[in-house]
Amino acid sequence: MTARLGVGMVGHAFMGLAHSHAWQTAPRFFDLPLHPDLAVVAGRDAQRTAAAAQRLGWRSSTTDWRELLGRDDVDLVDICTPGDTHAEIAIAALEAGKHVLCEKPLANSVAEAEAMVAAAQAHPELVAMVGYSYRRVPAIALARRLVAEGRIGTVRHARGLYLQDWLSDPATPLSWRLDKQKAGSGSLGDIGAHVIDLVQFITGETLTGVSAQLATFVAERPVAAEFGGLSGVGDAGGATGPVTVDDAAVFTSRLSGGGLALFEATRFALGRRNAIRVEINGTDGSIAFDFEDMNVLHVYDAHDPAGLQGFRRVYVTEPEHPYTGSWWPTGHGLGYEHAFTHQVVDLVEAVAAGTPPTPTFADGLQVQRVLDAVERSAADDARWTPVEG
Amino acid sequence: MTARLGVGMVGHAFMGLAHSHAWQTAPRFFDLPLHPDLAVVAGRDAQRTAAAAQRLGWRSSTTDWRELLGRDDVDLVDICTPGDTHAEIAIAALEAGKHVLCEKPLANSVAEAEAMVAAAQAHPELVAMVGYSYRRVPAIALARRLVAEGRIGTVRHARGLYLQDWLSDPATPLSWRLDKQKAGSGSLGDIGAHVIDLVQFITGETLTGVSAQLATFVAERPVAAEFGGLSGVGDAGGATGPVTVDDAAVFTSRLSGGGLALFEATRFALGRRNAIRVEINGTDGSIAFDFEDMNVLHVYDAHDPAGLQGFRRVYVTEPEHPYTGSWWPTGHGLGYEHAFTHQVVDLVEAVAAGTPPTPTFADGLQVQRVLDAVERSAADDARWTPVEG
Amino acid sequence: MTARLGVGMVGHAFMGLAHSHAWQTAPRFFDLPLHPDLAVVAGRDAQRTAAAAQRLGWRSSTTDWRELLGRDDVDLVDICTPGDTHAEIAIAALEAGKHVLCEKPLANSVAEAEAMVAAAQAHPELVAMVGYSYRRVPAIALARRLVAEGRIGTVRHARGLYLQDWLSDPATPLSWRLDKQKAGSGSLGDIGAHVIDLVQFITGETLTGVSAQLATFVAERPVAAEFGGLSGVGDAGGATGPVTVDDAAVFTSRLSGGGLALFEATRFALGRRNAIRVEINGTDGSIAFDFEDMNVLHVYDAHDPAGLQGFRRVYVTEPEHPYTGSWWPTGHGLGYEHAFTHQVVDLVEAVAAGTPPTPTFADGLQVQRVLDAVERSAADDARWTPVEG
Amino acid sequence: MTARLGVGMVGHAFMGLAHSHAWQTAPRFFDLPLHPDLAVVAGRDAQRTAAAAQRLGWRSSTTDWRELLGRDDVDLVDICTPGDTHAEIAIAALEAGKHVLCEKPLANSVAEAEAMVAAAQAHPELVAMVGYSYRRVPAIALARRLVAEGRIGTVRHARGLYLQDWLSDPATPLSWRLDKQKAGSGSLGDIGAHVIDLVQFITGETLTGVSAQLATFVAERPVAAEFGGLSGVGDAGGATGPVTVDDAAVFTSRLSGGGLALFEATRFALGRRNAIRVEINGTDGSIAFDFEDMNVLHVYDAHDPAGLQGFRRVYVTEPEHPYTGSWWPTGHGLGYEHAFTHQVVDLVEAVAAGTPPTPTFADGLQVQRVLDAVERSAADDARWTPVEG
Repeated sequence: MTARLGVGMVGHAFMGLAHSHAWQTAPRFFDLPLHPDLAVVAGRDAQRTAAAAQRLGWRSSTTDWRELLGRDDVDLVDICTPGDTHAEIAIAALEAGKHVLCEKPLANSVAEAEAMVAAAQAHPELVAMVGYSYRRVPAIALARRLVAEGRIGTVRHARGLYLQDWLSDPATPLSWRLDKQKAGSGSLGDIGAHVIDLVQFITGETLTGVSAQLATFVAERPVAAEFGGLSGVGDAGGATGPVTVDDAAVFTSRLSGGGLALFEATRFALGRRNAIRVEINGTDGSIAFDFEDMNVLHVYDAHDPAGLQGFRRVYVTEPEHPYTGSWWPTGHGLGYEHAFTHQVVDLVEAVAAGTPPTPTFADGLQVQRVLDAVERSAADDARWTPVEG
Repeated sequence: MTARLGVGMVGHAFMGLAHSHAWQTAPRFFDLPLHPDLAVVAGRDAQRTAAAAQRLGWRSSTTDWRELLGRDDVDLVDICTPGDTHAEIAIAALEAGKHVLCEKPLANSVAEAEAMVAAAQAHPELVAMVGYSYRRVPAIALARRLVAEGRIGTVRHARGLYLQDWLSDPATPLSWRLDKQKAGSGSLGDIGAHVIDLVQFITGETLTGVSAQLATFVAERPVAAEFGGLSGVGDAGGATGPVTVDDAAVFTSRLSGGGLALFEATRFALGRRNAIRVEINGTDGSIAFDFEDMNVLHVYDAHDPAGLQGFRRVYVTEPEHPYTGSWWPTGHGLGYEHAFTHQVVDLVEAVAAGTPPTPTFADGLQVQRVLDAVERSAADDARWTPVEG
Repeated sequence: MTARLGVGMVGHAFMGLAHSHAWQTAPRFFDLPLHPDLAVVAGRDAQRTAAAAQRLGWRSSTTDWRELLGRDDVDLVDICTPGDTHAEIAIAALEAGKHVLCEKPLANSVAEAEAMVAAAQAHPELVAMVGYSYRRVPAIALARRLVAEGRIGTVRHARGLYLQDWLSDPATPLSWRLDKQKAGSGSLGDIGAHVIDLVQFITGETLTGVSAQLATFVAERPVAAEFGGLSGVGDAGGATGPVTVDDAAVFTSRLSGGGLALFEATRFALGRRNAIRVEINGTDGSIAFDFEDMNVLHVYDAHDPAGLQGFRRVYVTEPEHPYTGSWWPTGHGLGYEHAFTHQVVDLVEAVAAGTPPTPTFADGLQVQRVLDAVERSAADDARWTPVEG
Repeated sequence: MTARLGVGMVGHAFMGLAHSHAWQTAPRFFDLPLHPDLAVVAGRDAQRTAAAAQRLGWRSSTTDWRELLGRDDVDLVDICTPGDTHAEIAIAALEAGKHVLCEKPLANSVAEAEAMVAAAQAHPELVAMVGYSYRRVPAIALARRLVAEGRIGTVRHARGLYLQDWLSDPATPLSWRLDKQKAGSGSLGDIGAHVIDLVQFITGETLTGVSAQLATFVAERPVAAEFGGLSGVGDAGGATGPVTVDDAAVFTSRLSGGGLALFEATRFALGRRNAIRVEINGTDGSIAFDFEDMNVLHVYDAHDPAGLQGFRRVYVTEPEHPYTGSWWPTGHGLGYEHAFTHQVVDLVEAVAAGTPPTPTFADGLQVQRVLDAVERSAADDARWTPVEG
């Protein structure tokens, strides 16, 4: 009989759905050392939270996330709320002796993130993981493996672009993601954080500094009827409000190993729906990835025979690839949410083994420091700004 | 309170896993009129079936599929076994008053399929659906919608290729899929059936005749330790056995509207893991699909302005696209198994509405007749062989 | 001082332009053993032929192609006229002691082609080459090299599709290409011949038989003001005339080594401008080509390490690749007409060396026999029809 | 009788070959108002220049480029030498009353470029064009046309990447391109200049400032036997010498219309042979180009109907497209050197019409100023550095 792992989740919007699905899917496809028990979900509105609990498969619901901390049947708190709430919940959960999985970005400021790391370090017996889920897209995990094995040699170039287009239309209304208070930053923290994390993860290096520009193309937008919902769409009634975050961020950087890096995050690249593009060029080969074709990793090996060199389109669906052997026969691709399931798998194994799973809170703090350096550089004539810490 | 729909499943291998996941995932993302209740799963081995029940989420298990027919808590029988068992189980289930979802191909012979259609027709109050799940890949469903709307005009050409490569190595051992008795045919019925169904589905036409060749490239293969498992991999101990099905099938055809069609099914196309390629050229446009990039449909509109014509890469992840609006925000692709979830959604809605869902058993019979014509043509010097019925 | 090779060309339309350019470009980029001297061009209309001579770089012009046969400054006759004239000109040229380069298809019938082969065999001291120029697209030449080196093993599957769309509109007027008398056949001989030749060339095998269908989608078309010009576009004045050739051809075949093959030729595949698609799957690998991305060959090697397998996108622009080292630095792609320049290079080298260049007239006859078998099979219920000879 | 345009060319290496071919090819495919007469080529070595003249089709040769200035049969001087010689030759040619076509970059410094512009302005009756030839790749010319027509609206993002890999191997020897004295800069001026020009050309805007980093990955390289040749490959004999230019450049920028831009130029991106990648996102659509698939432009129109949006793969080979109608039928792609032919066509037409052709020397100076700002920013902590002028 597999022991249980009681889970309490805070938030039940977009990320709450993804996490709920992952908790229930993981044990169906993977052999987990602990069986997730979806004990309780917390939300702001009692009725909607109860409905979400039923639909998403949680045994109970509450409007007070602190209630989770006192429950014996909760071993792990899964934080799926906006970034401004992460620090308070995560620190309280750790202090209450609960493992924590916290959505990204880790926090809205370096100071908050540092406090979270301190709390995690104060409780080494607990797992504290930040949800940079794209690390567990099989093609990305394969990319990391190949770089770690030395297959592309020393990194000379990294490119990390995250291109979306859902804000291109000025008529798209305001939402919490455009409110600096709630979201911390705009494209930079919401999606730029992902490619920063991915480049650091895949290369195994850190960004040492940045030179950045930020831009806000649409400074004023209609107010949606209900501000704060998932999609933020609604009847604006003519009222408008300010966008207080960046619409786009571009910056150059240097990796700790000396390579040059280039980053862009935008929600205004018309036609690019969710193009997370990462390319790494090393001294022995290259890898390239685009989330819009997420089951493929392009791999170039400079040691292939002359005349037969070229990027290989590796369709990452084979037993030899990370995670995919537990799903379907070769050739049957996975989707967006599978990365969340893999995150649950690795998290549960880490809890059972008592080993810290990556990305740790410290990894999340490192991304936060890059975000902070980007904002400071952008405010200072794009001047080279070292990443602190 | 949503009424329940009791489901009993027969078989718990590859397809059983896909169906189980779909039954549980559907109500999390879609508003279903009936709530699936996973009552019982039937298998051959008591212990393994019980283990499968627990892992896959079924309330109980049995080694006698007939037990399902007598249970009050079973409203629908979901058949996930090899093709030689479909007719017996499906007919018995319909006669017992149960709805039926039957994996493809509908049967291993036209006669069996006809008997199944007769049983379905004798019970118009029951739903009888065959599991050509690829119809519900969003890009395929979009292709069908576009053709039905007349956007590509009259069909002149169809190409349906299903290319795999997992049998290319002669050392790959025998499995039930290579046994004519169990599988009916080889690539033809296993994967060729899918592209036959897809071309007929997308065009809304039927194949009127065929001119075909079959080939078996590797006539003898190692015997796996346990013959009949999902993957068929095991210790061959030196023994070999005959492959009694086709390894590959190629045929030309005509659509009922006069268009030319070309088909190929093979498991020997090295490098093509699961390339389901369908292209349709009409008098006003074209559509093209490849399952190895399953979230994309390429659409050509001949009425685009001169100089700006070209296939559009439609990334089928938008609210306007079939099924995708119930999943994630635009740009977040789906995977292989989502088509099974969509199949459950449409099936449950059909049961609740009392309307027959497609593909019906009659649709399955039509594919069976094409398969039969292919085999007869191949046996008769590739001579043009009309599809009967 | 390099000796000269006197060239006389017959015809100065589309192919005449391509050949003229090739004769003049070849010595600029390649070290040729003989220097082409563009002595004379023959055409039907004196004024237009003289104008073509000046523009295309020929020293003189004539309206009588037989004049070329008597000129001492003509060593080689380059035939760029429609297929119905090939046999007469080529045989007369060989009998007059001239080398011959003849555009494809070799002839409009097997009998004519046989007579041409006989004439070539009667003059082994002369070079007789047929202009299947696509063989000398670098990516195609590389494909042949790889197959000849055994890199993909024994061929199991070949696919040869030639998809165009310029006749899709029924308003496109008649031209000589739609006149059976002049063109011999339609898509089949015009473009299908190319993919037949390419599959035979790349595999080094021959097609042993076919099972075929032909279709004419638009049976009647406007008459262009001037019938017979290059583009055939003009004022139709309301008159229409019959299309006497096939619009599309589909057929299955077998290679002499046992592999299955699939062919299609059409000018009705909307959106496909000039998609010559050839894919070969062997026991050890695969190669795939599409002329719409003509500088690329996709190569799959089944012996790549597990987990790192995938089609390599080989950008065929390197010194190690056929022909490309004589052009530009790596990475600078070539275009359509370069294959004609390579044809001239190999032809001139063959003339100088006294060795027969491929494709020979016998190769052209072999294609002709396949075309003939296709037409006979299509007329006989698609029955399997062996390729004679 | 078409009047002649006497041309004298300086330099006969890589660019000299490309220009020579273009001068001779242009009148074969295009109706030119003046017929190019290849009068004389100048080079350093008498014997090699004479050989080049014969091979490349020039009537005479000389070792003194100043000789061209005094010849009556030279109307235009075509400068194909390294950048350090451009200013002197171009200014002298203009002062001698000759039209000038000068290879890019215009010069090795802003001061030189300013002097050249001054000379051009002093002779408004003469044509002075700089050879940013990629502007005349049909897909690029189409991109410019679409942006100028307003089809993508106001530009928000531009990305210009030029990725090569031929210097990745540290064993690749030195050549003049790695010598600051001769080449001015490394990747930045050699290839970065192209994407700077392309982004400014396509958008019709200028870069207002930059924030840049430069890097030299391999500081010391073997000395080739003959330093200064085209490829620089040879016997190094153990000696090494310093690389005095950048190996790679990355910078962010702003367009005059407010859009954000991102640039990269490198010869160390393994697997990218000649990837000139330009993407522009506007308020109404996007365009994307990659030179490794040079006959294609990807175009996104935000006004396409919902559900049918996506990048169109426009295969730029149609009569409606820039330049292509003069070549082959639709679907037959062009190669690298065609852009040089188009450059000749537009240049000859400009000379005949007396109108200044773009890119003018002033356009070349503008690129030079961006290069200069990049170097200054890189030397000043990547600080934002306005582009002067």
